[in-house]
Amino acid sequence: MQDLLHTIHLDLRRHHDRGDVATYIPELAGVDPRKFGIAVRTVAGGSFAVGDADETFSVQSISKVFALTMALDKLGDSLWRRVGREPSGSAFNSIVQLEHDHGIPRNPFINAGAVVLADILLDGHPADEAIAEILRFVRFVAADESIAVDTAVAQSEGATGHRNAALANYMKSFGNISHAVDQVLAVYFNQCALALSCRQLAEAGLYLANGGVNPTTGARIVAPDRARRINALMLTCGHYDASGDFAYRVGLPSKSGVGGGILAIVPGHASIAVWSPGLNKYGSSHVGLLALEEMAKRCEWSVF
Amino acid sequence: MQDLLHTIHLDLRRHHDRGDVATYIPELAGVDPRKFGIAVRTVAGGSFAVGDADETFSVQSISKVFALTMALDKLGDSLWRRVGREPSGSAFNSIVQLEHDHGIPRNPFINAGAVVLADILLDGHPADEAIAEILRFVRFVAADESIAVDTAVAQSEGATGHRNAALANYMKSFGNISHAVDQVLAVYFNQCALALSCRQLAEAGLYLANGGVNPTTGARIVAPDRARRINALMLTCGHYDASGDFAYRVGLPSKSGVGGGILAIVPGHASIAVWSPGLNKYGSSHVGLLALEEMAKRCEWSVF
Amino acid sequence: MQDLLHTIHLDLRRHHDRGDVATYIPELAGVDPRKFGIAVRTVAGGSFAVGDADETFSVQSISKVFALTMALDKLGDSLWRRVGREPSGSAFNSIVQLEHDHGIPRNPFINAGAVVLADILLDGHPADEAIAEILRFVRFVAADESIAVDTAVAQSEGATGHRNAALANYMKSFGNISHAVDQVLAVYFNQCALALSCRQLAEAGLYLANGGVNPTTGARIVAPDRARRINALMLTCGHYDASGDFAYRVGLPSKSGVGGGILAIVPGHASIAVWSPGLNKYGSSHVGLLALEEMAKRCEWSVF
Amino acid sequence: MQDLLHTIHLDLRRHHDRGDVATYIPELAGVDPRKFGIAVRTVAGGSFAVGDADETFSVQSISKVFALTMALDKLGDSLWRRVGREPSGSAFNSIVQLEHDHGIPRNPFINAGAVVLADILLDGHPADEAIAEILRFVRFVAADESIAVDTAVAQSEGATGHRNAALANYMKSFGNISHAVDQVLAVYFNQCALALSCRQLAEAGLYLANGGVNPTTGARIVAPDRARRINALMLTCGHYDASGDFAYRVGLPSKSGVGGGILAIVPGHASIAVWSPGLNKYGSSHVGLLALEEMAKRCEWSVF
Repeated sequence: MQDLLHTIHLDLRRHHDRGDVATYIPELAGVDPRKFGIAVRTVAGGSFAVGDADETFSVQSISKVFALTMALDKLGDSLWRRVGREPSGSAFNSIVQLEHDHGIPRNPFINAGAVVLADILLDGHPADEAIAEILRFVRFVAADESIAVDTAVAQSEGATGHRNAALANYMKSFGNISHAVDQVLAVYFNQCALALSCRQLAEAGLYLANGGVNPTTGARIVAPDRARRINALMLTCGHYDASGDFAYRVGLPSKSGVGGGILAIVPGHASIAVWSPGLNKYGSSHVGLLALEEMAKRCEWSVF
Repeated sequence: MQDLLHTIHLDLRRHHDRGDVATYIPELAGVDPRKFGIAVRTVAGGSFAVGDADETFSVQSISKVFALTMALDKLGDSLWRRVGREPSGSAFNSIVQLEHDHGIPRNPFINAGAVVLADILLDGHPADEAIAEILRFVRFVAADESIAVDTAVAQSEGATGHRNAALANYMKSFGNISHAVDQVLAVYFNQCALALSCRQLAEAGLYLANGGVNPTTGARIVAPDRARRINALMLTCGHYDASGDFAYRVGLPSKSGVGGGILAIVPGHASIAVWSPGLNKYGSSHVGLLALEEMAKRCEWSVF
Repeated sequence: MQDLLHTIHLDLRRHHDRGDVATYIPELAGVDPRKFGIAVRTVAGGSFAVGDADETFSVQSISKVFALTMALDKLGDSLWRRVGREPSGSAFNSIVQLEHDHGIPRNPFINAGAVVLADILLDGHPADEAIAEILRFVRFVAADESIAVDTAVAQSEGATGHRNAALANYMKSFGNISHAVDQVLAVYFNQCALALSCRQLAEAGLYLANGGVNPTTGARIVAPDRARRINALMLTCGHYDASGDFAYRVGLPSKSGVGGGILAIVPGHASIAVWSPGLNKYGSSHVGLLALEEMAKRCEWSVF
Repeated sequence: MQDLLHTIHLDLRRHHDRGDVATYIPELAGVDPRKFGIAVRTVAGGSFAVGDADETFSVQSISKVFALTMALDKLGDSLWRRVGREPSGSAFNSIVQLEHDHGIPRNPFINAGAVVLADILLDGHPADEAIAEILRFVRFVAADESIAVDTAVAQSEGATGHRNAALANYMKSFGNISHAVDQVLAVYFNQCALALSCRQLAEAGLYLANGGVNPTTGARIVAPDRARRINALMLTCGHYDASGDFAYRVGLPSKSGVGGGILAIVPGHASIAVWSPGLNKYGSSHVGLLALEEMAKRCEWSVF
């Protein structure tokens, strides 16, 4: 496996088309586009890494996987009254769908859906308490107390801030946001600004590959069927309107973020984190996708 | 004319289907649905009124006609780079169209368009100065210094507040709002909360029937071709997605508001203000429309 | 008037941007883009013309005005159960709106609406009888027995044929087309292929400027209020998603066709027909619009 | 396994809410809603069945799985220039998406996508030859020469016929259909009218559970990675706008048809066919879904 990672890393690190680094969050625009790391954690205890796998990056939308885990723990299946679980067929920040569906986001991984998750995680508390709770949870699943929020990124929202404020206000007009919009967005932006390395992220996602239990610590995070269902949502909705393409080409549950990271799950076997900041037109890491495709192919890791 | 108004008022005041008073602005929900007033001001100097024509009501979206007049005065035709002039084919608070058109509202009379007008009227000043300027303008065109903003209504936004905040933030994410969203909305909500009686409103709109000049005071408000063009926009866009129906049935430029008022223009002849708080499903006064239809028919006032 | 026509014709005939001749109907693609004619018929008996005003061209969508007149005569206001009367806010051949509105076209001037008119005009008869009836009607309102259908154009449908077959089949699946699709389209394509000169077209539309009566023959075509209402529809819906712009700039009821013709009505005064084959991006004659704008401005002909 | 099938069959056969039998294809409307069969074929050679598992039914959209297999064989990955592979987020017969995407259907399992597959399978031949080729292919993968098309169903199209004619004509106007529409639809309707029993259908789909090889006959149908990819498409797109829900609840690649059948694949293990004619609001068998959910749960068959 370590050899495979080296080969893939070597092949792709000089890939001339690296995509474009996200510019609408100013703090992310300065990231070096040549960064490239991969980490694999196996259920059996293996740990493999290559390149910039120990450097932290902004996980952005990958954090929605952890927020969803927490929100399902709070509400159970009644969560699905406030957010759907269908692929949206549209971009991550589309507002059109919300109008058709009366303020109910299509799934928890588009921005509007994740804003609803943030509203649920607030749960009557001040925003900083909710943020602290999310941070505790991510440290817990990653078994790493050093994980932190990059507050400079959280405050550097750019155009993204107004678009998400639009989504939140819009859903609030339908009654699907219960807290004040600025509090909800504070939770959302801080959650997205979580900074993890590939190695930390692979560890954090490992419970989804292992029936809900982190095999390193033995801690049960969720029941086995819930882990399966979160994986199902990652497969159908994890890459916005390119989810079908990723399922077709790679065949693994995964979630991307505009920071250039991708978390992929091989149920029963392993979790994989890749990071390369340049994005394709759907907002997922261009080189990261190629790396995952190559790994899945060589290891025959498709769920299908 | 006075006889005609009495007849129509008598016929319609007991009309059993009066529509429903708007409830999403709490302060408007308490208005007596039996209120009903009509005022007509002619270019030739006639002034006619019946029913509750001297009682003030919240003009709401009718104020967009005056805001448009002011914004055209500030920007001239370059206004049309920031807002379109096509009927929208959708509801007054739709956000779908904005996504398709990259943050450019379809016309100045849907909510998103009027929020752009408010941004233009701010023009670098604090919100209270812009509000004061709008108030001065409306007092000027109505030749009545007693006209005021109903601040209780301005503060009573309900669901409407969040929806409009969504529209403003959304357009800001496309760069089509230049001031802070709360300042823009302060202008917008205060402008909508202008309280005029039918008699005042008919006077205020009379310049549009008289080539841009208020015949009472002799003051030129706009050039003749601009008056014509504002009338054109009222005819094609004044009733949201029921504009075509109103043009077909009545054939006059007009603008409705959810306070139950309607301002209609008979180019070259007169301006008409009606008020009856119950609304049809498109958000226009139900009885008010019937009154206008009857008056236009009996007076042969269609522009066609 | 004749002098004015000469001036405008002279100014515009060398206008370097003439738009593009429609190519999706092969038979129209070969028309000389330099053709340019104008004809004006006044209610008072005046008849003026300039340029290629006596050369026939394919009226295409302008024919929908006559089809609407005939369909209203057959069904009266119950026509509006099968087609709306709102501006569509979308292109002439859009199918999206039909899905939202369950097979009811937004207005009779978009293609789907006109296909419903064709279905109504069939009325249980074979297509060739319906076509003959339409031809008789147009000859009658134009007081000219020489008017004919250009059958080469009717048979030269190109991409347009499939798109309109899609619209017709789609509405039939909702039950809003009662005859066989090929019969309905035969009527529609032949109606669109009517060939009139500017002079004939101005005469044919004159009843709409004169309260429903052709002043030349004295024949009453429709009641005065119906003439007004057809004019209202032309103003709000006559140029598809550029109707608002035309109302704003010119302020006259009018209907364009992809053959490059436009019929405009000055209620109470005159009817105008212009022809210049190059189209703007909305499918209306580019130079024709400029000519109408100039005429309306100089004659102060806006209805507003 | 046989015991499990009996238990599930017993539990569900008296389920009082059975959904509604499809009525828009007249020939299907007469099917007895109490019919209920299940068949399971395992890669290891097991064959299990219960209830009406030997009675044939109209497979309808399930046939798209076989058509896709054939079309990929003809065109390989260049197929994806003519049809997408993203979940559509809309109903099976929606035409809206086609307008946005210029005639390219979102995926091969919505109706428009399957009509493109039919056009590909025609490949210059007469419709009856293409139909015969499809029939040969299905007989081959099912290893059963008795399988036939129910021509009464093929001819009984009802509203469905006009809607699909609309889709085909619409795509043809964009150049994405190359043969005559009536020929394409003949192929499509006959393919949908294939009649298989649960037992035959489970056998026919078994190659998708076994890396592309039918284990009974040893025949290789497709390469292993293509089998995986077809499974991926079934998981993300197999149930139209309820695909995400099925992935979440059941976690298996599957394809439903309005005849009340569902084919589900357990990669590496088995294929399952269920049949119960009553449909839920998304057009999938209501009781069939419950049966699959129960089986997947008890056997821990989710791919996740």
